[in-house]
Amino acid sequence: MRRTVFYISDSTGITAETIGNSILAQFDGVQFDTHRLPFTDTPAKAEAAALRIKTRYAQTGQRPIVVNTLADPSLCDVVAQSGALMIDVFAPFMGRLEAELGTRRSGAVNRSHGVVDYAKYEARINATNYALSHDDGMDLDYSDADLILVGVSRSGKTPTCLYMALHYGVSAANYPLTEEDLDKLELPAGLRPYRKRLYGLMIEPERLAQIREQRRSGSRYATLEQCRWELQQADRLLRKAGIPSLNTTHVSIEEIASKIFDRFGIERTMF
Amino acid sequence: MRRTVFYISDSTGITAETIGNSILAQFDGVQFDTHRLPFTDTPAKAEAAALRIKTRYAQTGQRPIVVNTLADPSLCDVVAQSGALMIDVFAPFMGRLEAELGTRRSGAVNRSHGVVDYAKYEARINATNYALSHDDGMDLDYSDADLILVGVSRSGKTPTCLYMALHYGVSAANYPLTEEDLDKLELPAGLRPYRKRLYGLMIEPERLAQIREQRRSGSRYATLEQCRWELQQADRLLRKAGIPSLNTTHVSIEEIASKIFDRFGIERTMF
Repeated sequence: MRRTVFYISDSTGITAETIGNSILAQFDGVQFDTHRLPFTDTPAKAEAAALRIKTRYAQTGQRPIVVNTLADPSLCDVVAQSGALMIDVFAPFMGRLEAELGTRRSGAVNRSHGVVDYAKYEARINATNYALSHDDGMDLDYSDADLILVGVSRSGKTPTCLYMALHYGVSAANYPLTEEDLDKLELPAGLRPYRKRLYGLMIEPERLAQIREQRRSGSRYATLEQCRWELQQADRLLRKAGIPSLNTTHVSIEEIASKIFDRFGIERTMF
Repeated sequence: MRRTVFYISDSTGITAETIGNSILAQFDGVQFDTHRLPFTDTPAKAEAAALRIKTRYAQTGQRPIVVNTLADPSLCDVVAQSGALMIDVFAPFMGRLEAELGTRRSGAVNRSHGVVDYAKYEARINATNYALSHDDGMDLDYSDADLILVGVSRSGKTPTCLYMALHYGVSAANYPLTEEDLDKLELPAGLRPYRKRLYGLMIEPERLAQIREQRRSGSRYATLEQCRWELQQADRLLRKAGIPSLNTTHVSIEEIASKIFDRFGIERTMF
C-alpha cells in the first residue's frame, strides 16, 4: 500500500517532517511518498498547496495525508479544502498548555527554525569550526574539547562530531587510532591527559570492510582480515585504557550522539 | 515566569525535543528550563524519570511539563505518576491514522532516529565527505555537485553545506569569492559551467564585521569598510551573473537550506 504525505509549514517544515516521519514509521506495511511544502505563509500559497494535494488525490484515488504546523487557522482551512486527512501537529496541545501556563500562545508564524539567536548561531558555528579543525587528528590540542571520539578509520567519527557541533554546539574532536597505537595497545601520549573525555566508536568488521571497500576498493585496508585485526586491537586498547565505547553498526548518528551525551552528562539544548 | 520541561523518549528524544521546542516557542512570556531523558525504555528507567520530575516539582512548587514520545503506554503511566502535565506527542494522531490506513500501528519502540537504513546512512556519509572535500574552494571539480554555494568569507557557506549533507544527503560544495573575483566582477572560469547550480549567500556588513572580528580581531579583513566593499562587489557579481541569493543575517541554517532546496526544486527526505 502506498500513500502520499505532504508536510506543510509556514516556515521550514522541519518540525512537521520530524514528527511526521516518527508517526508514519510506526505503520510497517505502508509505503509513504512524502513531499515538503515549506514557507506556505500566504492564502495564495495555501491555495496552490491545496490544488497540488487535490490533483494528487485525483491521480491516485487515495486521500493524501497532510501533516502541518501552520500557525494561522485560516491557512489551515484553505489547505483542508483539498479533502486531505489533516494532521495538525500543534492543535491538540495548545489548549492544555494555555490553561497550564495561564497565557495565550502568541500565534506568531516562523517561530522555531526561522528565528536566529546570534549567541546560539555563534555557538553552533564555533563548534562546527572546532570539529573541522580537530577532525581526523589534524590538531592534537584537545584542551578545549568537550569530548574526543577515538576509533579506527571509517568508524563514523567525523559525521558524529559534525552532527554534535551543528545541533548542540558541542566541541567534539576526533582521533583515528593508528596502526602504531593498535600495535602497542596504548593511547598516544597526547591523548592521555584527556582520558576522561574520550569515547570509542566501534563497528562490526563485516560492515567496516563494506564501507572501506566503497572507498578504496581492493585495498588491504578494506579486507575483512585487516578490519578484524584493527577492531580487535581497538577493543583491547579501549578496555585497557578504561574508555567507554559503543558499537555503531546498527545505530544512527543521532542515537550515537544521544548516547554519548547521556554518558558524559552533557545536557545541551538542540538548535 | 519559569517552567521546567522534560523531554522523555524510549529512543533519542529528538522528535520530542523538536516538537516541544516548536510548541514552547509560541509562549513568549515564559522561560523554559529543558531537560532530556532519552532511552527511557524500561519500567525502572521510567520510575527514575518520574522521581526526578517529582523532585523538581517539589523544589519549584510548579508542575513540570513532560513532552514524551513513549510508545509503550505502561511507561507513560509510570512517568505520569510524577504529577507532571503530560504532553503525549503521538497519541492524538494515532487513532485517526489507524482508521485512515486501515491498519494498526506496530507499537514498536525505537522506530525513528534509532533505526539504521544502510543506504540512507551511506548517502549522508558520502554527502558529508563530499562537502568536506569541496569546502572552501578546496576541490574545484564540481561535476558531481548538487549545488554550489558562493559568497564572501564567513557568510555561512560551510555550516550550510554540512547541514544539507548530513540531513538530506545533498552533495553541496562551496566556493569563497576571492578579492580577484570581486575586483573583476566575474565568476572564475571554473565555476561558469555550473552556473545553474550556483546559489549566493549574502549577509549584512555589520554582522559580517562582527563575525570576522571574533575570528581575526583587529585585522583589515574584519573592518566594516572591507566587509561593505566585499559584499557590495559580491552583490554586483551575483546579479551580473544571474545567480539567486539570500541574505542570511536573520535566517537559521535550517531555513537557508529549505529556501535553497525550494529554489532548486530539490525534494529530499530528511534523515
